[in-house]
Amino acid sequence: MSVSGGVTAPPTRAWQVYLAGEIHSDWRKRIEAGIREACLPVSFSAPVTDHAASDDAGTGTLGEEGTPFWRDHMGAGVNAIRTQTLIRDADVVVVRFGDKYRQWNAAFDAGYAAALGKPYVTLHDPELDHALKEVDRAAQATARTAEQVVAVMRYVIEGKLG
Amino acid sequence: MSVSGGVTAPPTRAWQVYLAGEIHSDWRKRIEAGIREACLPVSFSAPVTDHAASDDAGTGTLGEEGTPFWRDHMGAGVNAIRTQTLIRDADVVVVRFGDKYRQWNAAFDAGYAAALGKPYVTLHDPELDHALKEVDRAAQATARTAEQVVAVMRYVIEGKLG
Amino acid sequence: MSVSGGVTAPPTRAWQVYLAGEIHSDWRKRIEAGIREACLPVSFSAPVTDHAASDDAGTGTLGEEGTPFWRDHMGAGVNAIRTQTLIRDADVVVVRFGDKYRQWNAAFDAGYAAALGKPYVTLHDPELDHALKEVDRAAQATARTAEQVVAVMRYVIEGKLG
Amino acid sequence: MSVSGGVTAPPTRAWQVYLAGEIHSDWRKRIEAGIREACLPVSFSAPVTDHAASDDAGTGTLGEEGTPFWRDHMGAGVNAIRTQTLIRDADVVVVRFGDKYRQWNAAFDAGYAAALGKPYVTLHDPELDHALKEVDRAAQATARTAEQVVAVMRYVIEGKLG
Amino acid sequence: MSVSGGVTAPPTRAWQVYLAGEIHSDWRKRIEAGIREACLPVSFSAPVTDHAASDDAGTGTLGEEGTPFWRDHMGAGVNAIRTQTLIRDADVVVVRFGDKYRQWNAAFDAGYAAALGKPYVTLHDPELDHALKEVDRAAQATARTAEQVVAVMRYVIEGKLG
Amino acid sequence: MSVSGGVTAPPTRAWQVYLAGEIHSDWRKRIEAGIREACLPVSFSAPVTDHAASDDAGTGTLGEEGTPFWRDHMGAGVNAIRTQTLIRDADVVVVRFGDKYRQWNAAFDAGYAAALGKPYVTLHDPELDHALKEVDRAAQATARTAEQVVAVMRYVIEGKLG
Amino acid sequence: MSVSGGVTAPPTRAWQVYLAGEIHSDWRKRIEAGIREACLPVSFSAPVTDHAASDDAGTGTLGEEGTPFWRDHMGAGVNAIRTQTLIRDADVVVVRFGDKYRQWNAAFDAGYAAALGKPYVTLHDPELDHALKEVDRAAQATARTAEQVVAVMRYVIEGKLG
Amino acid sequence: MSVSGGVTAPPTRAWQVYLAGEIHSDWRKRIEAGIREACLPVSFSAPVTDHAASDDAGTGTLGEEGTPFWRDHMGAGVNAIRTQTLIRDADVVVVRFGDKYRQWNAAFDAGYAAALGKPYVTLHDPELDHALKEVDRAAQATARTAEQVVAVMRYVIEGKLG
Repeated sequence: MSVSGGVTAPPTRAWQVYLAGEIHSDWRKRIEAGIREACLPVSFSAPVTDHAASDDAGTGTLGEEGTPFWRDHMGAGVNAIRTQTLIRDADVVVVRFGDKYRQWNAAFDAGYAAALGKPYVTLHDPELDHALKEVDRAAQATARTAEQVVAVMRYVIEGKLG
Repeated sequence: MSVSGGVTAPPTRAWQVYLAGEIHSDWRKRIEAGIREACLPVSFSAPVTDHAASDDAGTGTLGEEGTPFWRDHMGAGVNAIRTQTLIRDADVVVVRFGDKYRQWNAAFDAGYAAALGKPYVTLHDPELDHALKEVDRAAQATARTAEQVVAVMRYVIEGKLG
Repeated sequence: MSVSGGVTAPPTRAWQVYLAGEIHSDWRKRIEAGIREACLPVSFSAPVTDHAASDDAGTGTLGEEGTPFWRDHMGAGVNAIRTQTLIRDADVVVVRFGDKYRQWNAAFDAGYAAALGKPYVTLHDPELDHALKEVDRAAQATARTAEQVVAVMRYVIEGKLG
Repeated sequence: MSVSGGVTAPPTRAWQVYLAGEIHSDWRKRIEAGIREACLPVSFSAPVTDHAASDDAGTGTLGEEGTPFWRDHMGAGVNAIRTQTLIRDADVVVVRFGDKYRQWNAAFDAGYAAALGKPYVTLHDPELDHALKEVDRAAQATARTAEQVVAVMRYVIEGKLG
Repeated sequence: MSVSGGVTAPPTRAWQVYLAGEIHSDWRKRIEAGIREACLPVSFSAPVTDHAASDDAGTGTLGEEGTPFWRDHMGAGVNAIRTQTLIRDADVVVVRFGDKYRQWNAAFDAGYAAALGKPYVTLHDPELDHALKEVDRAAQATARTAEQVVAVMRYVIEGKLG
Repeated sequence: MSVSGGVTAPPTRAWQVYLAGEIHSDWRKRIEAGIREACLPVSFSAPVTDHAASDDAGTGTLGEEGTPFWRDHMGAGVNAIRTQTLIRDADVVVVRFGDKYRQWNAAFDAGYAAALGKPYVTLHDPELDHALKEVDRAAQATARTAEQVVAVMRYVIEGKLG
Repeated sequence: MSVSGGVTAPPTRAWQVYLAGEIHSDWRKRIEAGIREACLPVSFSAPVTDHAASDDAGTGTLGEEGTPFWRDHMGAGVNAIRTQTLIRDADVVVVRFGDKYRQWNAAFDAGYAAALGKPYVTLHDPELDHALKEVDRAAQATARTAEQVVAVMRYVIEGKLG
Repeated sequence: MSVSGGVTAPPTRAWQVYLAGEIHSDWRKRIEAGIREACLPVSFSAPVTDHAASDDAGTGTLGEEGTPFWRDHMGAGVNAIRTQTLIRDADVVVVRFGDKYRQWNAAFDAGYAAALGKPYVTLHDPELDHALKEVDRAAQATARTAEQVVAVMRYVIEGKLG
């Protein structure tokens, strides 16, 4: 963590960043690549992003279930062990909303982080601004691109811009 | 609160129920009417459900703002004073999802309640089950009709069914 | 709340006592009768003690469910809205274990109260002492009779013995 | 923690799993063996599972005590230093109920974990379902076999099924 | 609390508003007058605003003290009993910064409220915007006039604009 | 709560004050008398101050116990139901140390209040200053007389000196 | 942490033990020696036990102060930075009371730990039992010798007796 | 952490110290140099102290913004990700006030730390004492020079003076 006055303080703190939300584009890969290129000490975590595995998380581990509602219920419980633990661990949460699907779990994660006093950054296009106004209000920043998220993390960790 | 053994305990506790989510149908009115008919000691609260007023909450109180993003930002801040205070006050939150709009603020409220350890009940049609599986999993109940919510509250308060 | 020195302080504080556990004997009635006889300002709450209603809490409010596991799951969720709210409200929890049934929910309630830093009193026969040692250790008192619970509450509220 | 998009993130996070409950069968050994076989980064903890030592935890460390109730009381206090510390440390708690004994301490641990917002998984046969409905409801998953618990942890950590 | 659908819910909730900061102008009087005129159920609290009394809070209650630093120290301790209790009680905090004096205690109160997750509104002229940017960022709203604060509270409580 | 600007705000808030510590002199009576004389809206609470009753709190409610250590243990558990509940309820705790006895429970109560972030005032003679320096440091004020405690509470509630 | 079933789990967890209280005898040395002899993974912390340094902690770091009360006040503040940080860090606190001095800070530390839900062990002679009954009641164990504290920690960490 | 009795305990604990406040003099450099010279295991963190970068933290990472108020708002949000995370991480916060500028963010940080129960040390000249009395009162120490802060940390960590 850089401090004033020229004293060299090694940036040994590893920042934990949880990447929540949309799983159909490569935004996580782009953020990770940007962070690696900038040599920032960031450790990433995320929900399971393999859509099929995530949907089968309950029946694939605990056994068959015939009713769709309860199949989802079992799966969501198993996924919550992962997501709630990793969100609690994180220093910063990035919440991505894409232009398709309802992505209610992304908004749920944002509300969960907000209530814990955990800082989060939203990432979405301006078309979604009005619908996301409550979610954006409780965020510390709203980014439009993965590169902006990288820029935010670079500034937060190293105090450097562009 | 009724207890076993025939001792008469007057149900003096007033339950606070916060009604979150969709604002385009009459579900709040139906829940309130059902609760009144059942003579249950419930006090309701809710976000501002006048859509136009809610959208103007910032500029209508704090003054003009030309940029849509910041207009929403101001409004969401003013609304959050109300919603977060009332959710923290509530004993139970009911979160309603309709078939239109994205309703991310409803999912945000559910995540917020979950992180506070506040019990909530979701209210939506089966068509939304898969998309809402994470939100339903953290709920104590998923209802399909306003009448079911009334039945839940009647049971919770009086211990009576049907 | 009585204080030293003869100053008259009216005992206006109403104590909330939650009566958890066994539902097959009249221990709740006896505690309530004793408290009323002693004119103590105590307000009682309890889980729903109508066994049949409690078992049907889910299907009786939210609709049919064919699988026993999920029927219980729905019912336990609805019951938890009541029990967790009332335990959080309570000043003191009394946890009763009888000589029949496994009563795991009573032990669950005790663990829940312990983690919240909520004082609780256990009520059971000496035959159960060894099996309940962890539950008793985290309690502030272990009583053998309903009358002893009344005596504890009388002392706690009025500072008077026998 | 694996994330989408092919970026390699080393699974450096060590998950802490606390294995609570029944001490008369080899379920802990089977879970540990399965986790090791799957090469998962899990660190286990548990209560003291040597029954005789656990019963003598008080008198074996603090000196003789003639009354059985207080002997248990002393032992339970010493055991609680271990169990409550390790449960607070854990990311996930597994709570096992066998078909013998009352195992109230297992249910107590589940209630304790629930109040802390700590995710837990129950492990028991279907015969116990009805009696454990409250304990199962607050769990994120109910498993029938040790192998299912391993599958849950493999999915939670690596996002992989079977 | 007004809800949708025409159901009449009496606004019985009394909102607690703490008025922090500058004590040399009549802003508190103007907010209170506006709230009364609008017939809003608001109960106000504030630090002691009699400057001389506030400065003497320590020596005037606990006895003489010759060193200015410790005199202030004693006074600040006595004042903190009041201010921290009332801020914790409040639903909303209004923090006023005037154009004179350093008013560090106002910024301290804002930071205190922020860490508690308590919503607050800042009230100051645009000239102070840059210097107050951190304090404004953690606020839910920034008002320029006492009348705007009244409008915010009216909207928050009644859902009405203008 | 008085506020600036002449607006009349009725002092409707009732302050809860817990009077901890020494039980052999009339300091509680003097504080209560002073508060009544000043017509302050204060509600008092305290531990049981009847020394004999307090010592018998366990055996007098729960039955005989032959070993002095466990007799004290039972009594302290029953007393803790009262003291910890009332300290958590209190707005302000006054902790009195006299010149006799060790009064470790008074210091325990102070540490308990400090960890809860609850403001407290110590009351003792200067002879004890050095021995009580840690306890005084975490207090918001150290008073020498009951009258000074009354003066502190008058200032805290009404903002008035002498 | 040893678990049932013969699986070898390396005891990698380092336990943090804070040694509070009396500073005039060699009890800390004896506990540390016993722990080292038993090869237990324990890391110790303690208040500053050099009596003269502790008394001068304020003036020796922050500059001269003529009044004894404020000298102690300054010193206690500086010491509290150390003690409160290390108590919060600790897994277990040992609180020692000797037969001399009032040791109110030891009782304060015990109350502080109790309110944090931090397990602690008291260490004192039977002569002090009655005076310490509240402090002992909130403890998980009361030991008479340093060797007993070592035995408790050995059991807690390794599950082994004598 | 040194303990009594000559037992060698290696000072392996790394203390986290956050240096908040004024960014125009070399006080951070002097504290760091003093800590290094004393070979103390301290890891420092701080807000971004490059004034220009800090002012551009929003627009430099998230894109252009024409209105000064919102430009500051964006920047303060990004800065808060860093500052609030590091303050929560810190064992001790040092808050520096210089003789120029209003430095409201320093007072905000102090209030934030106070509400979290995080110990902090203020650092400022006596001329500011009266204006900073509330901020100083909630601090554990008030230092006049960077060297005094070093002395405090040396004592806190090693128990040594001068």
